Amino acid sequence: MRQAGRSLFVTLEGGEGGGKSTQARRLTETLRGRGLDVELTREPGGSPAAEALRPLLLTGDAARWSPQAETLLMYAGRDDHLNAVIRPALARGAIVICDRFADSTEAYQGAAGGMPPEFIGVLRKAVVGATEPDLTLIFDLPPEEGLRRAGLRGGEARFESKGIAYHRRLRAAFLDIARRDAARCVVIDATLDPDTVFRTALAAIDAKLGA
Amino acid sequence: MRQAGRSLFVTLEGGEGGGKSTQARRLTETLRGRGLDVELTREPGGSPAAEALRPLLLTGDAARWSPQAETLLMYAGRDDHLNAVIRPALARGAIVICDRFADSTEAYQGAAGGMPPEFIGVLRKAVVGATEPDLTLIFDLPPEEGLRRAGLRGGEARFESKGIAYHRRLRAAFLDIARRDAARCVVIDATLDPDTVFRTALAAIDAKLGA
Repeated sequence: MRQAGRSLFVTLEGGEGGGKSTQARRLTETLRGRGLDVELTREPGGSPAAEALRPLLLTGDAARWSPQAETLLMYAGRDDHLNAVIRPALARGAIVICDRFADSTEAYQGAAGGMPPEFIGVLRKAVVGATEPDLTLIFDLPPEEGLRRAGLRGGEARFESKGIAYHRRLRAAFLDIARRDAARCVVIDATLDPDTVFRTALAAIDAKLGA
Repeated sequence: MRQAGRSLFVTLEGGEGGGKSTQARRLTETLRGRGLDVELTREPGGSPAAEALRPLLLTGDAARWSPQAETLLMYAGRDDHLNAVIRPALARGAIVICDRFADSTEAYQGAAGGMPPEFIGVLRKAVVGATEPDLTLIFDLPPEEGLRRAGLRGGEARFESKGIAYHRRLRAAFLDIARRDAARCVVIDATLDPDTVFRTALAAIDAKLGA
């Protein structure tokens, strides 16, 4: 059984339209239903100062920021999000469920955007430091299907507008991360029905919780 | 005499209340009066996307962002400013007069804010690259006097609210930069009357222009 107050940092990653936000809410509700302390958060944003950057990143023209500027903005927000929300929650022993985190920067601005992994690595080390996720759920689906679903959802569309080749590189990048860091990452087939996806995600969290 | 179309990148640096913005405007008017193409710009900001970050950086609580987040935000804006404004102006042979640039990050977030110079150096190399200033005018004055003047001016006050010790570190940092990079930097005594300051600044630019 899980000891009370042992923290767990869970991130949900993947391309557009994979159902991350919906599953993050459902996982949070289920774990809270067991009496656990769960902090549900997201990126870009997650803290008041970082949320102020979110519309600058997610709206407007696809070429509004260079991949380099995007990377720097993402990490500026991440620094605040870690200090204001994630680290305090982990320190009090909570489970943190975060909809996107540092792997998204490696996939979006790195592999798909062309920023050198060494540059992103310097930022990740400086900003994330020891606060790496314990578990990363990667919601995988073909980009055509993901963009179709994201289009139905509406909302912020800057990254969705970057074209299918960009989104193919994204998918490959997330699968690369999962292979490289297999102890942390679980790939979930997001084309399956939402209940099956939910049960798979919850099982992965329970395995880490030792429940 | 100066050849038409030979670009020059001039930055104005220093603590608060040194008269940089006023002098930048006056220098621009004078050089334009000679028929030269002058791009007057500023940081944080200087391009539409980077100007959207300016209020996030310059207003609100002094502790709104960590020095690390500040550094990343400054460089995100600088990346856009360089690509959208500074590099195109230099490419067409203009004189660029920029009110604050990369030295401000080394002084404010580095020396005064505690960010390691190595970290800032990685960002400067990646973002500024070969587009380093040809000439940097450092407007030097005691921080007590600078803060008094800045207080009279009103306006954005986030950095002004950081306390006198912070501003003493700032002044020392700018003087260090001037010593380290003496071929690029000219220190100007900003306690002198504005006409004398202007003539000194213009003479430094003329020396670089070979006029």
